[in-house]
Amino acid sequence: MKIKTILLVLAATGAFAQQKLTGYVNPFIGTGAAQGSPLSGNNYPGATVPFGMVQLSPDTRNVPDWSVACGYNYNDTTIAGFSHTHLSGTGVAELFDVMLMPFSGARIQAVPGENPYQSPFNHKDEVAHPGYYSVLLQKHNIKAELTATTHVGFHKYTFPKGQAAHVFFDLDHSMKKSDWNTRIIASQITFVNDHTIEGYRIITGWAPMRKVYFHVEFSQPIAHNFVTDGGNSYDNAVVVNGTAIRAVLDFDNATELLVKVGLSATSIENAKANLQAEIPVWDFNGTVAAADKTWETELSKIKVDGTPQQKEIFYTALYHTFIQPNIISDVNGDYAAPDFTVHNSKEPYYSTFSLWDTYRGAHPLYTLLQPERSAYFANSMLRYYKSFGYLPIWQLWGQENYCMIGNHSIPVIADAVLKGIPGIDANAAFEAVKQSSLREHPGSPFKMWEQFGYIPENLKSQSVSLTLEMAYDDYCVAMLAQKLGKTEDYNHFIKRSQYYKNLYDAQMGFFRAKDDKGQWIGPFDPLKYGANGGYPFTEGNGWQYFWYVPHDVKGLINLVGGNAAFAKKLDTFFTLEDRPEEVNDNASGFIGQYAHGNEPSHHIAYLYNYAGQPWKTQQYVWEILHKMYNTTSSGYAGNDDCGELSAWYVFSAMGFYPVNPAGGVYDIGTPILKEATIQTPSGETFTVKAKNVSEANKYIQSATLNGKKYTKTTITQSDINAGGVLEFTMGSKPNKKWE
Amino acid sequence: MKIKTILLVLAATGAFAQQKLTGYVNPFIGTGAAQGSPLSGNNYPGATVPFGMVQLSPDTRNVPDWSVACGYNYNDTTIAGFSHTHLSGTGVAELFDVMLMPFSGARIQAVPGENPYQSPFNHKDEVAHPGYYSVLLQKHNIKAELTATTHVGFHKYTFPKGQAAHVFFDLDHSMKKSDWNTRIIASQITFVNDHTIEGYRIITGWAPMRKVYFHVEFSQPIAHNFVTDGGNSYDNAVVVNGTAIRAVLDFDNATELLVKVGLSATSIENAKANLQAEIPVWDFNGTVAAADKTWETELSKIKVDGTPQQKEIFYTALYHTFIQPNIISDVNGDYAAPDFTVHNSKEPYYSTFSLWDTYRGAHPLYTLLQPERSAYFANSMLRYYKSFGYLPIWQLWGQENYCMIGNHSIPVIADAVLKGIPGIDANAAFEAVKQSSLREHPGSPFKMWEQFGYIPENLKSQSVSLTLEMAYDDYCVAMLAQKLGKTEDYNHFIKRSQYYKNLYDAQMGFFRAKDDKGQWIGPFDPLKYGANGGYPFTEGNGWQYFWYVPHDVKGLINLVGGNAAFAKKLDTFFTLEDRPEEVNDNASGFIGQYAHGNEPSHHIAYLYNYAGQPWKTQQYVWEILHKMYNTTSSGYAGNDDCGELSAWYVFSAMGFYPVNPAGGVYDIGTPILKEATIQTPSGETFTVKAKNVSEANKYIQSATLNGKKYTKTTITQSDINAGGVLEFTMGSKPNKKWE
Repeated sequence: MKIKTILLVLAATGAFAQQKLTGYVNPFIGTGAAQGSPLSGNNYPGATVPFGMVQLSPDTRNVPDWSVACGYNYNDTTIAGFSHTHLSGTGVAELFDVMLMPFSGARIQAVPGENPYQSPFNHKDEVAHPGYYSVLLQKHNIKAELTATTHVGFHKYTFPKGQAAHVFFDLDHSMKKSDWNTRIIASQITFVNDHTIEGYRIITGWAPMRKVYFHVEFSQPIAHNFVTDGGNSYDNAVVVNGTAIRAVLDFDNATELLVKVGLSATSIENAKANLQAEIPVWDFNGTVAAADKTWETELSKIKVDGTPQQKEIFYTALYHTFIQPNIISDVNGDYAAPDFTVHNSKEPYYSTFSLWDTYRGAHPLYTLLQPERSAYFANSMLRYYKSFGYLPIWQLWGQENYCMIGNHSIPVIADAVLKGIPGIDANAAFEAVKQSSLREHPGSPFKMWEQFGYIPENLKSQSVSLTLEMAYDDYCVAMLAQKLGKTEDYNHFIKRSQYYKNLYDAQMGFFRAKDDKGQWIGPFDPLKYGANGGYPFTEGNGWQYFWYVPHDVKGLINLVGGNAAFAKKLDTFFTLEDRPEEVNDNASGFIGQYAHGNEPSHHIAYLYNYAGQPWKTQQYVWEILHKMYNTTSSGYAGNDDCGELSAWYVFSAMGFYPVNPAGGVYDIGTPILKEATIQTPSGETFTVKAKNVSEANKYIQSATLNGKKYTKTTITQSDINAGGVLEFTMGSKPNKKWE
Repeated sequence: MKIKTILLVLAATGAFAQQKLTGYVNPFIGTGAAQGSPLSGNNYPGATVPFGMVQLSPDTRNVPDWSVACGYNYNDTTIAGFSHTHLSGTGVAELFDVMLMPFSGARIQAVPGENPYQSPFNHKDEVAHPGYYSVLLQKHNIKAELTATTHVGFHKYTFPKGQAAHVFFDLDHSMKKSDWNTRIIASQITFVNDHTIEGYRIITGWAPMRKVYFHVEFSQPIAHNFVTDGGNSYDNAVVVNGTAIRAVLDFDNATELLVKVGLSATSIENAKANLQAEIPVWDFNGTVAAADKTWETELSKIKVDGTPQQKEIFYTALYHTFIQPNIISDVNGDYAAPDFTVHNSKEPYYSTFSLWDTYRGAHPLYTLLQPERSAYFANSMLRYYKSFGYLPIWQLWGQENYCMIGNHSIPVIADAVLKGIPGIDANAAFEAVKQSSLREHPGSPFKMWEQFGYIPENLKSQSVSLTLEMAYDDYCVAMLAQKLGKTEDYNHFIKRSQYYKNLYDAQMGFFRAKDDKGQWIGPFDPLKYGANGGYPFTEGNGWQYFWYVPHDVKGLINLVGGNAAFAKKLDTFFTLEDRPEEVNDNASGFIGQYAHGNEPSHHIAYLYNYAGQPWKTQQYVWEILHKMYNTTSSGYAGNDDCGELSAWYVFSAMGFYPVNPAGGVYDIGTPILKEATIQTPSGETFTVKAKNVSEANKYIQSATLNGKKYTKTTITQSDINAGGVLEFTMGSKPNKKWE
């Protein structure tokens, strides 16, 4: 779907006028791979508000698996229903709670697990903008419209006249049960009265145990219900407990049906209270407008000038970064703690921390645009630490799934404290990052770390990636220790942050795996890929991981023998097209060995700055911005990974990106937007201008900061927050003297 | 172990004097089958207090399954450890939470799932009495002693001098993981300080999801810990989260180690509060004495005179009936509600409702001896109903497992209300039993029940057993409706209570299965057994289920053509030795077709009373009392089923038993005890005397109630509660005129 269509449609809904930033957002970007590509963004087009618990979106398969992890694939031709929780851009499918599917005609005897109401749809009948989604379900001739608040999904179904109107309510809908040992432990549906149903499901899967409570209100009376639970069926049930509950609700002669679905992770009572607090009346359009207004406020934190396509990509990316982390506490402050009890906090409690991805760009972006929420995120992690004993690795619905390596809560929290984000107890934060760096836990083998000074591959797989990433996390602990004057801790962790050097093979010029005797493990092929275990490299190869020393690029340059050798190695990296057969699924979006489709590459184009060749940073950043992002359904080079690929674009399109995600130093790449104005927390604005910028003029010729000549290739968060204007003058040829 | 040994040992502990009723209890009765028998009582010998959350008992296998459902088999020769929760007498294994095993010597590298510290033991080194258990662990030369309070297990380990002392702490210990899809969803161990550990495990198995939190205090400092979680290991861990956590704790030079383990189903905080409330000091002997005193108080509710063997069987049986239902709320009133939230109640909240078994005898016994708890049990079920929508069927740790058929909360609640047990809201009770009899749920197909007037086998298996048991439950609803003046409801349910007749095949003289066309399903063999599905009879055959009309024995007599025919059929039943090959495991303890090892037979010997031949009731009850119970480890004819076989003995040995479990009418069998005095709630006593009773004199010759001639074959709860003396004169020959 093209932006023009959207704008027309938006205008037609009457919900808001054109020229709003929400009008630039195209939720179909990243929703489906182009022919032949294994990856898109894995984004969904449904309705959500910023950082909300509810993501109400169509599922194009009845049994989603990893290949459609967000529930929706643009290339699919049918819709199974609309479920209330989704992950944006992940490589694992999860959530999909409480699916509704309206249908007309007769109830169909359904085989358990099959969905007889799945309907064809056409993209021309689909509309999506922030907080709103609609589609025509062709099989049933029903127009379905969706909107949402933080805890509530709001459905509007327009049924064909003269046909029986029904809603299929599926509590069994989940990712493929055979994946991640998914099992519904218990679930319940209660017909409270003819307008209300309530219940819950307790499910184990990628998250060890999720509790999802719901309170649902219908604008029309339920005339009759028919509930199945596997082979059992219940006619006009009052309450059904089971593990595969699906219900058909009949609404006699309804042509318009509104449905409000309140969710909670703690109780039915709270699901109801959430609903009543957020959508007390039956005002669908009002809810759409409110969602739009919320999005407009959030998107307005950066105002940009550029081409329509740039704006579409930019604001869609910004939109994608603001979809998560997700609040999982209730309006009354109750939340499900990691020890499976309910706690209460005045601050909202957040989850969906895809940290191996998002610590790189998304979380630094939040410190800039969402400082209040940055504190909430950090404090949520700190509360989690209090109960769990160490900080989250990949946290979903308040639960740990240990996906990926390292413990990258540490850079996120360190970054927030180092930047002085208000509302975080620095000492509590230090205690948490320190203990999380000492208490051995899955993926973080600190004992062998301290014993060997590296991770021996024969003791722990993914050892090279782990060694590099743990060294970085340790640097973050050291920085926080330094800030708090904890010298002993600083010394301990800064020493550990240098352990990366212990795996550098000077002869090969790469980081390589050693065993616990200190012997290199061979043969070594820097092109060979690892996935998530059984090989020293994680979702990448030796070439991609070579560059992962974001805290000590100078140290890395010294290892290879200085700037020239380093730049030459970068040149090779960006031009070596050799691709072995076993390229990991996560590697895509190639420029030479650079793979923009996965996170380990993300900072590499910026490293030329450190070797005295910023024009090559500019050249490759420009190339990535233009080659790896577009406005189609396959607009991302790989999984958006909870907004990480989006955050890269948001930063880089403005002209900078944090090679080192913690501490507030940004590396200047090349601005492609004519102008970008960031609204700072104190009410100032910081504007990046790119004079003469064009397709041809991708090189920085000169720069000024607040009118004064600026030659640094970095800019700090303090500079930005102080407000002002950073103006670049762009040209078609590298200015090798600007630096 | 013989009672004499126990008494000597008890005297040796100095905890209490001889002649106490607790001294008659032999916890080894029912703990292991004799050679060749498939069944014992499935009782455990460990330490518990009446109706407590904690049952601290040795597990003789590291991976218990159904064949050792209580964890302990008297025929086993090793002990794997001491876990804190057990089921007494069930046919399914479950619980086994938080296992400790002390050991001496060196830590052994253990394969996950194997227990290298399992130790041989000898029954001569074992002592058990109510609230106390001890054993010598031969492999380690450690004396382990156990006692308990309601929520706390208390261990005392005496280690050999000069050897390293350790405790193996196993959070992975459970029933066999492949049974009931058992899986640990999450677990945690935290080393709070050198004397304290805390944590939890969340486990799915026979109960859909159990949360078990613990707070453990040691009298000696933990010098070092080593934790494994499957393949991961942690040296001196602070906190470990995992799904197969096992720890070895080292106690340097300890010769005596005391360990207090507080449990909770709601939180670590509550586990700690439970411990601190119940065992604030390190007084092991004091805790033993307190447990003994509590047991003495409970056992004193009936004082009996009889032979030493009779007293041993009787008080052990009474002890077994008072082991459950189990409190699962905390000292502060918090409890885990069925919707996986935490609620609070001033009254204690109970679980472990093995209702298909215990509604027959155990719950009626509770109304007599534990009226306050009877109200708590009923109110716990009513609170459960409020959330779950119908009353519990088989409730474990607050969760439904749908074991067996019918919904026999209904007779339990109806019985308590009909008997006027104080503290139950009769209208709320009626609402719950009525709705639980209308709202279709697993095992209770009310739609077809109302449609066909029976359960058609082709639509729902176990149909004959279901039809008979549902008819009885309906009768209970009708009785409660009648008491509350709800005529319409009475008419509805009393009609349903007669549906049993619809499956009577007059030609065959048996209840038989029909299909949904009303046709008999053949061929029919009244000897053929069913188990738990796929056949019209549940854990029994057509002969055993023929008698299951406890609410309308006269109606049943009429069906077969009057008293003579009925008595003749009973004669055949008790003498027909024919045993088909496929006898269900649950059928055992035979007298003809009568199988005392399972519940469907339990009321049958009393039915002669209804046909005018009470002396035959006396004859067979006497035979059952003497043949089916003894003081050995195989002292029960089958699984004790949470005290149901025990309750049968307690009642029948005194001379009466409720054929109809609801309403307070008891049928007189034959007293074998010289005297039994029941302490009534109002402080009265009711004494049953059996003048001239002896092995030879098993027949009632005459009776008086409070000095007046008594000729009825029934006595009511009101009679008992009013206090007085029921005196039988016994003789060696049937007095066919006494009735």
